[in-house]
Amino acid sequence: MNLVILDPGELSAGGKVRLSGPRAAHLLQVLRVKDGQTVRVGVLNGALGAATVRSVGDETVDLTCVLDARPPRPQRVDLLLAVPRPKVMRRLWAQLAALGVRRIILTNAERVERPYFDTHVLTPQCYRPLLIEGLQQARDTLLPAVSIHRRFKVLIEDELDVIDEGAGLRLVADPDAGPSVSEIVSARLGPEPEARVLLAIGPEGGWNAFELGLLQAHRFHHVGMGSRTLRTDTACLALLALVRDALPRPA
Amino acid sequence: MNLVILDPGELSAGGKVRLSGPRAAHLLQVLRVKDGQTVRVGVLNGALGAATVRSVGDETVDLTCVLDARPPRPQRVDLLLAVPRPKVMRRLWAQLAALGVRRIILTNAERVERPYFDTHVLTPQCYRPLLIEGLQQARDTLLPAVSIHRRFKVLIEDELDVIDEGAGLRLVADPDAGPSVSEIVSARLGPEPEARVLLAIGPEGGWNAFELGLLQAHRFHHVGMGSRTLRTDTACLALLALVRDALPRPA
Repeated sequence: MNLVILDPGELSAGGKVRLSGPRAAHLLQVLRVKDGQTVRVGVLNGALGAATVRSVGDETVDLTCVLDARPPRPQRVDLLLAVPRPKVMRRLWAQLAALGVRRIILTNAERVERPYFDTHVLTPQCYRPLLIEGLQQARDTLLPAVSIHRRFKVLIEDELDVIDEGAGLRLVADPDAGPSVSEIVSARLGPEPEARVLLAIGPEGGWNAFELGLLQAHRFHHVGMGSRTLRTDTACLALLALVRDALPRPA
Repeated sequence: MNLVILDPGELSAGGKVRLSGPRAAHLLQVLRVKDGQTVRVGVLNGALGAATVRSVGDETVDLTCVLDARPPRPQRVDLLLAVPRPKVMRRLWAQLAALGVRRIILTNAERVERPYFDTHVLTPQCYRPLLIEGLQQARDTLLPAVSIHRRFKVLIEDELDVIDEGAGLRLVADPDAGPSVSEIVSARLGPEPEARVLLAIGPEGGWNAFELGLLQAHRFHHVGMGSRTLRTDTACLALLALVRDALPRPA
């Protein structure tokens, strides 16, 4: 944990907060904080700052926070992901937040098994703490937005332009495709530092022909990643790293 | 499983083999193979080919293999990794093999906890099947070499040039460093398609100043990955993706 994230409601006037639970346990047992020590804090979807440890209990830590740094810059990569196996999805949440995904759009596809939609892993009770864990790792406060879509065709034809605000370069990972992420991004995206990318990653068995066709008809450009077939989670992290690296740098 | 990997000793004359255990279970339960069907096969550290399913038992599958395709091209990326927590290391093995790491060099560092070296996760009994799982995912047959080094200084000063065969561009991931992987690789590596890279990734808390200095004194160039602090496994996969993407493509 490289940043303690607070809910806005937790802070009293004067920036005081008493932590208990996992955050206090981490501060006490892993970071072994002492009175007077300073730790990095941030408010969820808000500003960053520093906190002084005022007192340490058996299972609580009292902090006084000064939130004088601006919120982090909004992320620029959205992910459209065919729902993977629950075990894989559980592992991905924190990593997606840590890698700076702005919006996670989960979708059905022919090769997504129906029971995947009914698991605990897709409930906010499960994924919200995992996303916050990823933000705390990466020192970000901006919680990725999550939406879940059981109808692929409706999502792509009707909903995506609204969710996506019509902007951004759309990419779909395709094991057979030629051009690399960096080639497509540099050819298609101008140098503006606000440029956004929406990256689509299919199910373990791949998109079917209809799905690929529909994505292509809705401005998704195919990008390849060489000849190796990767597991969904490995492919996700690898492609997100390539997209982030290819984006024009903010000044 | 996109490729069934066989041990050379398993094949009888005429390319016949009877599979049982996990590979048979996967063919029967996930791929639901039938008599006469063809599946991709490869010999560990050897050739690729195809196999015809001759007969299917309750828990066995009989194959006849024709191994007429050349072995995959040797990989060009080696990884020097400070041993992470056992849980993280267990997850990484298959992903490192899937991403095409040629050699995995595990090392001690100040911020590696001693008990990490004594876990089951660092034994060939544990990691070999996981590496093969990764190869089967990525359709490769070349098993990454693994070596484990408890003395960082001895590794860097004395052993690395032998292991590394003196070749290749050396990179060390550093959250504070400026240039990106692609900038360093394109500036430092010629266009030769055999060019190799050795990527060093530190422990969760980072290398200490002595360790970073020693790496730098032994030709490791610092590369950055932006301002986000990532977990070891996320950083590993992200950086490996960037290195693979930055390497000159074979003709």
